[in-house]
Amino acid sequence: MNWNRQHLLDLQSLSAAEITLLLDTARDFRSFGERDVKKASTLRGKTVINLFVEPSTRTRISFELAAVRLSADVINFTAEASSLKKGETLRDTVRNLEALGADFIVMRHGASGAPHFLARFARAHVVNAGDGAHEHPTQGLLDVFTIRERKGTVRGLKVTILGDILYSRVARSNIWALLKLGADVTLCGPPTLVPRVFEKLGCRVVWNIEEAIRDADVVNLLRIQHERQRKSMFPSIGEYASLFGLNQARLRLLKPDALIMHPGPINRGVEIESGIADGPQSVILEQVSNGLAVRMAVLCLLAGAGSVPAVGTVADGATA
Amino acid sequence: MNWNRQHLLDLQSLSAAEITLLLDTARDFRSFGERDVKKASTLRGKTVINLFVEPSTRTRISFELAAVRLSADVINFTAEASSLKKGETLRDTVRNLEALGADFIVMRHGASGAPHFLARFARAHVVNAGDGAHEHPTQGLLDVFTIRERKGTVRGLKVTILGDILYSRVARSNIWALLKLGADVTLCGPPTLVPRVFEKLGCRVVWNIEEAIRDADVVNLLRIQHERQRKSMFPSIGEYASLFGLNQARLRLLKPDALIMHPGPINRGVEIESGIADGPQSVILEQVSNGLAVRMAVLCLLAGAGSVPAVGTVADGATA
Amino acid sequence: MNWNRQHLLDLQSLSAAEITLLLDTARDFRSFGERDVKKASTLRGKTVINLFVEPSTRTRISFELAAVRLSADVINFTAEASSLKKGETLRDTVRNLEALGADFIVMRHGASGAPHFLARFARAHVVNAGDGAHEHPTQGLLDVFTIRERKGTVRGLKVTILGDILYSRVARSNIWALLKLGADVTLCGPPTLVPRVFEKLGCRVVWNIEEAIRDADVVNLLRIQHERQRKSMFPSIGEYASLFGLNQARLRLLKPDALIMHPGPINRGVEIESGIADGPQSVILEQVSNGLAVRMAVLCLLAGAGSVPAVGTVADGATA
Repeated sequence: MNWNRQHLLDLQSLSAAEITLLLDTARDFRSFGERDVKKASTLRGKTVINLFVEPSTRTRISFELAAVRLSADVINFTAEASSLKKGETLRDTVRNLEALGADFIVMRHGASGAPHFLARFARAHVVNAGDGAHEHPTQGLLDVFTIRERKGTVRGLKVTILGDILYSRVARSNIWALLKLGADVTLCGPPTLVPRVFEKLGCRVVWNIEEAIRDADVVNLLRIQHERQRKSMFPSIGEYASLFGLNQARLRLLKPDALIMHPGPINRGVEIESGIADGPQSVILEQVSNGLAVRMAVLCLLAGAGSVPAVGTVADGATA
Repeated sequence: MNWNRQHLLDLQSLSAAEITLLLDTARDFRSFGERDVKKASTLRGKTVINLFVEPSTRTRISFELAAVRLSADVINFTAEASSLKKGETLRDTVRNLEALGADFIVMRHGASGAPHFLARFARAHVVNAGDGAHEHPTQGLLDVFTIRERKGTVRGLKVTILGDILYSRVARSNIWALLKLGADVTLCGPPTLVPRVFEKLGCRVVWNIEEAIRDADVVNLLRIQHERQRKSMFPSIGEYASLFGLNQARLRLLKPDALIMHPGPINRGVEIESGIADGPQSVILEQVSNGLAVRMAVLCLLAGAGSVPAVGTVADGATA
Repeated sequence: MNWNRQHLLDLQSLSAAEITLLLDTARDFRSFGERDVKKASTLRGKTVINLFVEPSTRTRISFELAAVRLSADVINFTAEASSLKKGETLRDTVRNLEALGADFIVMRHGASGAPHFLARFARAHVVNAGDGAHEHPTQGLLDVFTIRERKGTVRGLKVTILGDILYSRVARSNIWALLKLGADVTLCGPPTLVPRVFEKLGCRVVWNIEEAIRDADVVNLLRIQHERQRKSMFPSIGEYASLFGLNQARLRLLKPDALIMHPGPINRGVEIESGIADGPQSVILEQVSNGLAVRMAVLCLLAGAGSVPAVGTVADGATA
């Protein structure tokens, strides 16, 4: 199969075959970060703009490293002090970046659908690095990639996502990828944040954590966002931890080989007890490493390098 | 002709021949941004410091890309949290950057004449990226470059600059370049912002927009700076738009082949009606692309690479 | 002698032989900044993260240039808007950076001992770029390097350090390096900032500046930190200048070949009279250049490139 899309906007519109191609390509880059010389020439002379209208050090660095290791030139563009603050429209900002020869625009934006809006006119490749509460497709990909690497397959697995599902782009991207690849998805959290409407997508909605995790092959804990906690929909941090936090008592309910995931940054003692985050079932840091592999794969596929040439280039980088 | 200057400080002190050499060199880089591999090795191992004491994402990115595509190492140095804030003089900051091996110092500064001050002692090449209300030479160059590419020549053309002329470094650099290359320059805007004193430079001053644009071959609309609007000298935004904004009624007065220019970022509905900015006479995005070519040319000429070797290097980049 | 340490955390724990190896290696890079092509391939494909939890433009740029000129990929990570602000622990931040393949973590941190804490679990090379009032080892190295280059040796020299010794990491790193290499160290400043306890390290403590500088071969003036002046322990700026500032009258007490040093940024008219900073005895800008050489040496030695291969690589860069 070949990759035919110009942009990566979401996982909802991708087919299972496309997601699988992305994961297969990411595999070629899986151990790239452990190499002695982490450099391939695939994107030499290409320009990647990190357009982060909403701040995010973690995702920005992952994309920046993915691009730089593929030898692209990377420009970081943040909303502060930028022309967006001077009343320029997003469309004009992007057209300006394209006039400067941007090949990729990696965008984080607070408004759901912002990258889809760009894609209507952009000549550059648009990569959604998180749009509002809508999607965060590379996070969804790195999560299913991590599951597939560990479990061999995604099909038939029972995956439980725990936390603020309603406002989480991470949850949404995970749900699409998991369902398309044939997993059984259970969503769990306070009823205000996990409404029954998600059942229409094909998920199971459970408000009791013990019930939600008992049979799970994977438990994915979302981050509780202190900094934008929704007062009316959310219990206190302490109450959340006691009702939905993963602690030792709940860990004993889990299958011994169940994976524990978290998109980070983790709040030790809130979503997850500190020892569990560092325990043998946790794959949290693998997710981070895999994120880099997934982002390199995304850039390569969009650039038209495709999966087979990419492998060649990787070998190329290894001998450089 | 050869380039003999160490710095690019302003256009006022350049000869027509020097400006022409800059434009001719920029031509070699005109389509560089559309290449598959946007990389030449001309400035490999050289260090470019973007010393932006006044913030500017747009100009900074253009210089950064120009330098990076010529393979220079680029360091971004902004005034926030820097040693300038700790009481260090500008002279000492620059000497420190030179002690670190800076080859180029690209400086944006709020004080008119700041780059000329540096040039008195700097060993590095100083490039003025905008100093107060004084000059913005690369903007002036990219504007005349755009005109010349479109019209074949600048000599004899009627160019109207519209807006806040008094406080605009863009206007000043345009005026110098246009007059030296033999254009007829008309300035137009509210009388408080377009005083008669500009006539002494050889420009025509007109306060009525219809009169100012009727015969023009080029209309260059300056940006209205919401963020530092001068209360006592300036009508309201709405009043400005109705008196001096380029709208459909005024567009009909223009010659059909008159170019419409704007240094960006544009305020749609203020200086220019939205449809006109995207219309067939607008060359606003070409200006952005040309800015990159001009800045690459400036760096190459200052580096002593000269116009002929630069072409060689470009070819070099193309095959890489 | 070979280098055997994974990290550079402080100078206190290094032997004289290790410090000497660092200085000898730095020598290979001394004139690197004046080269036409400032590029060596030593660290190609390596990732250096500048983790600056406390801001510092000057030191960050020096490390960034050192790494970039050795062809490493550099990511700047500042505390603002980062995951550290979202409640992530420093340990988790660093583990995440390692999961992204970081080879070097260059850290500036407000807490004394923060890099030692990282070193307990880090797989990457940790370089201390200043921790609280504890140490700033590369500053100490560049200072003794500058002295050795100028005087031929450090052994037997009389070195006076002037200023806020108590809270200065620069002073502490200098003291360790100087004593290990056999210098006689005199500390001078207001008694509140130069307590007698420093005599236990082997230094001489003198509260009268004339006495402290009379026989000195080197006078190292520390920076008075306006921005965090300690009210209860410190006279006014004016009083400091008159009691401890280096002025023309005091300059006449100095040996004619005594070196005048300052870590920068300098406060002209406070620690040092303006003319003296620019005078023939001042080596302040040499210190800046030497800082780059020292940091390149540190990165190379930690990377295991060692001193001999580094020379090869340098030659390599020169012909590129």
